[in-house]
Amino acid sequence: GIVSQSGAFGSHCAVAARRRGLAISHWIATGNECDVDLADGLAFLAADPRTEVVIGYAEGCRDGPQLREALALARANRKPVVIMKVGSSAVGAAAAASHTAALAGEDRVWDAVFAAEGVWRAGSVDELIDVAYACRGGRLPGGRRLALLTLSGGVGIVMADEAARRGLDVAPMPAAAAAELGRLLPYAAVGNPVDTTAQVYNDMSLVTKFADGALASGAYDSLIAFYSTLGLSDRLADGLLAAVQPVRASYPDHVLLLSILASEIHRRRFEEAGFLVFEDPNRAVRAVAALAWFAAAFAAPPRAEPPPGPLLAPPFAGEAAAKRALAAAGLAVAEERLVRSPAEAAEAATALGFPVVLKIASPDIAHKSDIGGVIVGLADEEAVRQAHETLLKRARDRRPGARIDGVIVARMVEGGVETIIGTQRDPIFGPVVLLGLGGIFAELFPGAVLRPAPVDLAGAREMVRALPGRPLLEGARGRPRADLEALARAVALVSAVGAANQDAIDGIDVNPFILLPEGQGGLAVDALIVPRRKDAP
Amino acid sequence: GIVSQSGAFGSHCAVAARRRGLAISHWIATGNECDVDLADGLAFLAADPRTEVVIGYAEGCRDGPQLREALALARANRKPVVIMKVGSSAVGAAAAASHTAALAGEDRVWDAVFAAEGVWRAGSVDELIDVAYACRGGRLPGGRRLALLTLSGGVGIVMADEAARRGLDVAPMPAAAAAELGRLLPYAAVGNPVDTTAQVYNDMSLVTKFADGALASGAYDSLIAFYSTLGLSDRLADGLLAAVQPVRASYPDHVLLLSILASEIHRRRFEEAGFLVFEDPNRAVRAVAALAWFAAAFAAPPRAEPPPGPLLAPPFAGEAAAKRALAAAGLAVAEERLVRSPAEAAEAATALGFPVVLKIASPDIAHKSDIGGVIVGLADEEAVRQAHETLLKRARDRRPGARIDGVIVARMVEGGVETIIGTQRDPIFGPVVLLGLGGIFAELFPGAVLRPAPVDLAGAREMVRALPGRPLLEGARGRPRADLEALARAVALVSAVGAANQDAIDGIDVNPFILLPEGQGGLAVDALIVPRRKDAP
Repeated sequence: GIVSQSGAFGSHCAVAARRRGLAISHWIATGNECDVDLADGLAFLAADPRTEVVIGYAEGCRDGPQLREALALARANRKPVVIMKVGSSAVGAAAAASHTAALAGEDRVWDAVFAAEGVWRAGSVDELIDVAYACRGGRLPGGRRLALLTLSGGVGIVMADEAARRGLDVAPMPAAAAAELGRLLPYAAVGNPVDTTAQVYNDMSLVTKFADGALASGAYDSLIAFYSTLGLSDRLADGLLAAVQPVRASYPDHVLLLSILASEIHRRRFEEAGFLVFEDPNRAVRAVAALAWFAAAFAAPPRAEPPPGPLLAPPFAGEAAAKRALAAAGLAVAEERLVRSPAEAAEAATALGFPVVLKIASPDIAHKSDIGGVIVGLADEEAVRQAHETLLKRARDRRPGARIDGVIVARMVEGGVETIIGTQRDPIFGPVVLLGLGGIFAELFPGAVLRPAPVDLAGAREMVRALPGRPLLEGARGRPRADLEALARAVALVSAVGAANQDAIDGIDVNPFILLPEGQGGLAVDALIVPRRKDAP
Repeated sequence: GIVSQSGAFGSHCAVAARRRGLAISHWIATGNECDVDLADGLAFLAADPRTEVVIGYAEGCRDGPQLREALALARANRKPVVIMKVGSSAVGAAAAASHTAALAGEDRVWDAVFAAEGVWRAGSVDELIDVAYACRGGRLPGGRRLALLTLSGGVGIVMADEAARRGLDVAPMPAAAAAELGRLLPYAAVGNPVDTTAQVYNDMSLVTKFADGALASGAYDSLIAFYSTLGLSDRLADGLLAAVQPVRASYPDHVLLLSILASEIHRRRFEEAGFLVFEDPNRAVRAVAALAWFAAAFAAPPRAEPPPGPLLAPPFAGEAAAKRALAAAGLAVAEERLVRSPAEAAEAATALGFPVVLKIASPDIAHKSDIGGVIVGLADEEAVRQAHETLLKRARDRRPGARIDGVIVARMVEGGVETIIGTQRDPIFGPVVLLGLGGIFAELFPGAVLRPAPVDLAGAREMVRALPGRPLLEGARGRPRADLEALARAVALVSAVGAANQDAIDGIDVNPFILLPEGQGGLAVDALIVPRRKDAP
């Protein structure tokens, strides 16, 4: 079934899909969406017993939660959904006008929703049709382990490279199976990829025996057999078909693909025998990756809303109030004190332990560093007293009239990695939670991870695993391994707070949340809570 | 022409190419390469007047310079070369055994050679055939400006996204041309992408007029027209052909592509009329990117060896000697002194200016930080005297028996960005030069830029432009813009030294080369020169 927000694109896909041998149950163009919209179409196809796979084309969406519900229904029905989403600019001015959406990049919220709902996002028409085609027959692999069988060592490497890029496991052939294959053909490559060599032209039964040997080992969930041009010759196609049919019969649940050039008529014969046929070997590998993605999505427990987070009690303008509110909600926050004199500052620093950082505290100064409102690395009482005076003078000189609550004294958190945890209210999908690396790393890894909020602890752990730059947290280059579990807990908590308070706030920005080495937790060092704008959509 | 190190892969490509309508001049399998090898095949095809495009399949190479010569000949003859290179593991143990090759990643040296010689590296069979196909007719675009014409706004966005990813310029329609197009069809989208809408089904001349209006503006080098399924119907295909023929006649030099689903017979008619035909719109965009790549490669001046770099006089073991040798060769090196007593250290520090860094100087201690052999941030004479004692004690305790030349006192270079400039001797291609970000950034941006050494200043500038993480050097987030020209000069110099001394050394490692803000240059702060290993290949 196809549902498309573009008539021209949808009809193009329908024709392309039929040329690939796919039967179309319904093809729905949603036009101007005065009433029936994309989510309605998806929900209809998700429930339709005649529809096995859903192809979607999306430019935008007005009701994000409804769209998520439709996708969740498809997942509950174990129905793969593959969507081409374009037009990040189409959702337009509303998103761009919102500071939070601008920060997230609207398109990445779609990615977040697709990741959460198990949708495969296609980047091209070829991919859209390939993935839908791969779902025909309804077989999904039990895992990510892929056997590669080929008559060309070169193509074996090509496929192994692509598999690695797509997170598939080209697991080595178990020793016993390799030994057995080696007895069949001494000069074959019997690792994985397995190379039967062109000897198959003389003895096609080698294909049967090698595939059987690989799958009988129990080490693989899927198998791709690359046999070049064998589908173009009647005689060779007959021989290959006879060779692979017993494999299908012996392993009814495995995903089996052939990468061959084949005439239309022979391609159909292989398909009817239960094989997926791809001309291009890289595209065959991508198809397996998509099937493994769906298998994992369907195996995951259905999305359960975590218990609602605590409601925040205003006011929470300014750093100190925001941190107090988040600490009350359960977030670990760096210890600090608000002081009103040099003497109080020195006393607080001694109590907290040196070195400390001093920050001007004012509800009217959001970006403290712009006015030199933060002084770090203060090592003794005298330095603290001086810094207190300096901060007040800078505030007076550079922001005359700003209300000054005092000065914050905080112990410097050293030896950690800066991360950013935040929430934003997306105009379409509602609250989303964001996790990224902080400080200088934020500009190096613009790819923060987003998910619809709230996420439970399992969802937060998945976000941590997906974080770009994660090696930095896992002890790369002799660094200590960071407390990833503490990070996941903080993400889950912030997401719950952001979701529970979405009517009152537009977003939370914990920046930085300094993540310490394993077992030592992490600490919010600065935070802001953005009240909901009255004119926001 | 096809030259392949794999018989199976080569025959597969030959069949795939012929199915795409490409005529094969020669197809060469190089077998075991006892005599004739890949480079011979490439050189033959590069010189062969019957061959317009060269398709290569490579797993390895024994004579890198010969391969480069063959590729340079193809470029001189303006003959596009597209190669699928696999088997980074095939070149095997020799590469892995060499420290320098292990650092570079063998496969990346191939990328470097391909980048230097104007080869398009394909990642899949589809891409290999697509790019070869795109070269038929021999038209290359004058630049990277791409007009997108479509009957589907959605596909227009799809193509624009792909063009952006591939560095093509979807330049806006000039105002006068847009106004003219708007008069033709008031509800058309007249920016770029241009959407003629499905109104073309009623009036096919709109295709002619819109394409003409776009190209007459002079704002574009190439045009892709997406017309969905029009190539599947005889009547519509006739109409579309009649509509596009005048465009080909009016703009004989522009690269013109159709992205349509078409029957074999109609596809050939469009091809004979001078259009490239791609079913998938993303692949059409990729083809334009490949053509623009070849156009730029052919327009670049032929590779000229820069004058040979200075010969280094051994010994150059240890940091101090390496830096002296490189300074003598012309590299800017941070000022420093070798001292032998606390008093000398204090005197040197005062002369150089505080703060300073002290480092143990020993030809037997290559990785000083492993033994605590570097102390930074020393702010006064007393601290320097103490640090001198500490370093000698650590060296005695932790590396008893190591020869100690003394202690290096150097002024700390502050406010710069750490980069790494190095050379390595690749076992196949000889000296290569490497540029990457340093320090923590090295692990974040493993994608250093490599090129065959030596590079001239123009080549070094190109490397700086290609550096991953370059925004960091260009003043991202309020940082000062770094002295990129000084970086390019240093890269060119180090590459020349590495190449000129390849019989004596395996590599140079300037790490870090601290790049200062624009106009202030850069300084090598640490450096090593690796003498040639006797048992190296």
